[in-house]
Amino acid sequence: MNNPLIPPPRGFEHSEFEQRTQKLQHEMEKQGIDAVFFSTEPEFRYFSGFKSQFWESPTRPWFLVVPSQGVPIAVVPEIGVAGFELTWIEDVRSWPSPRPEDDGVSLLTETLAEVSQRFLRIGAMLGPETHLRMPADNFSLLKENLTKFDFVDVSEIVRGIRSVKSSAEIEKIRFACEVAAGGFEYLLNHLQAGMTEREACKAMHLEMLRLGADSCPYLISASGQGGYDNIIMGPTDRKLDEGDILIIDTGANFEGYFSDFDRNYGFGRVDAQAQRAYEAVYQSTDAGLNTAAPGRTTGDVWQAMWSVLEDAGALGNDVGRMGHGLGMQLTEWPSNVPGGDVILQAGMVLTLEPGMTFAPGKMMVHEENILITDNGCEMLHQRAWPTMPIIG
Amino acid sequence: MNNPLIPPPRGFEHSEFEQRTQKLQHEMEKQGIDAVFFSTEPEFRYFSGFKSQFWESPTRPWFLVVPSQGVPIAVVPEIGVAGFELTWIEDVRSWPSPRPEDDGVSLLTETLAEVSQRFLRIGAMLGPETHLRMPADNFSLLKENLTKFDFVDVSEIVRGIRSVKSSAEIEKIRFACEVAAGGFEYLLNHLQAGMTEREACKAMHLEMLRLGADSCPYLISASGQGGYDNIIMGPTDRKLDEGDILIIDTGANFEGYFSDFDRNYGFGRVDAQAQRAYEAVYQSTDAGLNTAAPGRTTGDVWQAMWSVLEDAGALGNDVGRMGHGLGMQLTEWPSNVPGGDVILQAGMVLTLEPGMTFAPGKMMVHEENILITDNGCEMLHQRAWPTMPIIG
Repeated sequence: MNNPLIPPPRGFEHSEFEQRTQKLQHEMEKQGIDAVFFSTEPEFRYFSGFKSQFWESPTRPWFLVVPSQGVPIAVVPEIGVAGFELTWIEDVRSWPSPRPEDDGVSLLTETLAEVSQRFLRIGAMLGPETHLRMPADNFSLLKENLTKFDFVDVSEIVRGIRSVKSSAEIEKIRFACEVAAGGFEYLLNHLQAGMTEREACKAMHLEMLRLGADSCPYLISASGQGGYDNIIMGPTDRKLDEGDILIIDTGANFEGYFSDFDRNYGFGRVDAQAQRAYEAVYQSTDAGLNTAAPGRTTGDVWQAMWSVLEDAGALGNDVGRMGHGLGMQLTEWPSNVPGGDVILQAGMVLTLEPGMTFAPGKMMVHEENILITDNGCEMLHQRAWPTMPIIG
Repeated sequence: MNNPLIPPPRGFEHSEFEQRTQKLQHEMEKQGIDAVFFSTEPEFRYFSGFKSQFWESPTRPWFLVVPSQGVPIAVVPEIGVAGFELTWIEDVRSWPSPRPEDDGVSLLTETLAEVSQRFLRIGAMLGPETHLRMPADNFSLLKENLTKFDFVDVSEIVRGIRSVKSSAEIEKIRFACEVAAGGFEYLLNHLQAGMTEREACKAMHLEMLRLGADSCPYLISASGQGGYDNIIMGPTDRKLDEGDILIIDTGANFEGYFSDFDRNYGFGRVDAQAQRAYEAVYQSTDAGLNTAAPGRTTGDVWQAMWSVLEDAGALGNDVGRMGHGLGMQLTEWPSNVPGGDVILQAGMVLTLEPGMTFAPGKMMVHEENILITDNGCEMLHQRAWPTMPIIG
């Protein structure tokens, strides 16, 4: 059992929320948008600083309205009002919720109408990788209530702003990464044949919490003789045995920011084919690290990593991408995909996630978390071992 | 540190998914609905048995289509296909995702058109306490693709089916409750003045995981001299001191099923006013336990609990309800509200959550988890202490 790591400060200066909001308002002005409303936790928190686990309950909708100037307006259930005292939000409007016959729709309608009189254009998150956290019937009703207004998608604007992290955000992500790295190191000394996948994950879960994670909402594993066939299910009660390869992929969370990377462990002995696959994927990460830099694209990063895997005889990759943005959500825009045209900028936090099917039904996937710097990129945590570690 | 509790079996028999699906298909037939599609994790899991933490990533949409007869059809990203091997789903259709220009919309369109030729009516979750987990623009596109079909809300049907739990579901919830009760007992012996709220919650988090919880996605606290002013924020770094009252409210999770209840602790000494409030709220729970039974309504339960609080001088309650359904989500339909007309049935799992503001800025909230039985109700875990426990 290790000592807790020293965490960075919690929360953010109010000036940081002001800067985030001003960036959005600047883009709104350019596109002739009067106001934007948000309904999902990450965006609500990003612009308001309101952080609560209460979003776990799906009963009540919560709305944040960002007008063209000044501070956002919270349109929230009464139960949440006290939670805004410490935020930079001043105008908090509430209704007694749950009230299924009108759960915030009339109050949101009034608020949006009030602040959208210049262009009659209202922004919302409508595009890829988003959803509206409100009943679809209520969104229809909102649009009916506001027929003289246009609703336009702002997901592209918002993802652009959110993808470049501040130094305070980066420190939180880095800490979440260090905690996960500590958990993987711990497993190196505590895994043994005969444990189940579930026991292995539980041991790591406890260790990450002890090291300082607030929570570990994502902690999956897969295993099999000489390889595994998926990276999104598990952990199961499958017992780890000699000849197995185990992957654990985790997203630890600190102060609302995620890490997201994995590690592979061999048990007793590892087939030469699997060890070769491990080393090829490790070299693929090298290629990613050498490519990821300001001015390069997500497609460049994908191509650099894939070339190595192709040369190593990859049969395919059904993950659909080899890494993605990371921050307030376990996965964020952009994705490292073939032909990806998103230009990397300093301050972006990404995962490099090279992976391949190296034999029928057998995958090898690595993942690391990086920060794009002025000159290239840097790892946010200790890197994977260059050869697959053998347990026992 | 306690020994782990003995958990009930994981997963469900395939026949249980079949029965759930048939109940839905029976209601669909009555309402002339050809097919229903789901996009959110609880419904997807409820009808398919597909359980994965991968939903934590917002990038890819997942769809389950329930036709009028037979087994549901999965319409999912390629990365998920291997996860269906152990489910009762046979027809798994996939696309390479992420593919923002068509992330499942054309495949979902084809699938729905194929199975909706009789009434041309498609059901979806559009009503209260739901959302669609897909980009709003994609839902618009789906409706454009299927203009000759009507889209109708099935949230009322689905919540009706889901609200009555099977014995296998109840055992999972009961276990999640026992783990949380064990965590609260542990705190009784391990809390001390000088700890922060965050340290108290972390100690309980670790203990619940050791006892057998898979995760604890909800673990909040609030504290203050003689009372607290909210129940949805925290934990903070506030140090617990003599004269404080601490509330912790947690949702432990086992195999995808939640508990959701709280406990209050006094530090050193407790004001007589707060102790009286504690006892009044305890008696309010008694009234709820004596009322909750098949044939009674959620309004009856609310009224029974509120009468006690009113007599005790309650200044108000800004939680908006005094308990709710519980199961695959931390909070589920129905709510115990004034005038609530939902008739309780055996097999429903509810929380009783009486609470009041007993002095300006000071709340007292209790919560317990119950099962509606043939004759009344039963607690799913050890009950709160009849007087507020004093730490130190």
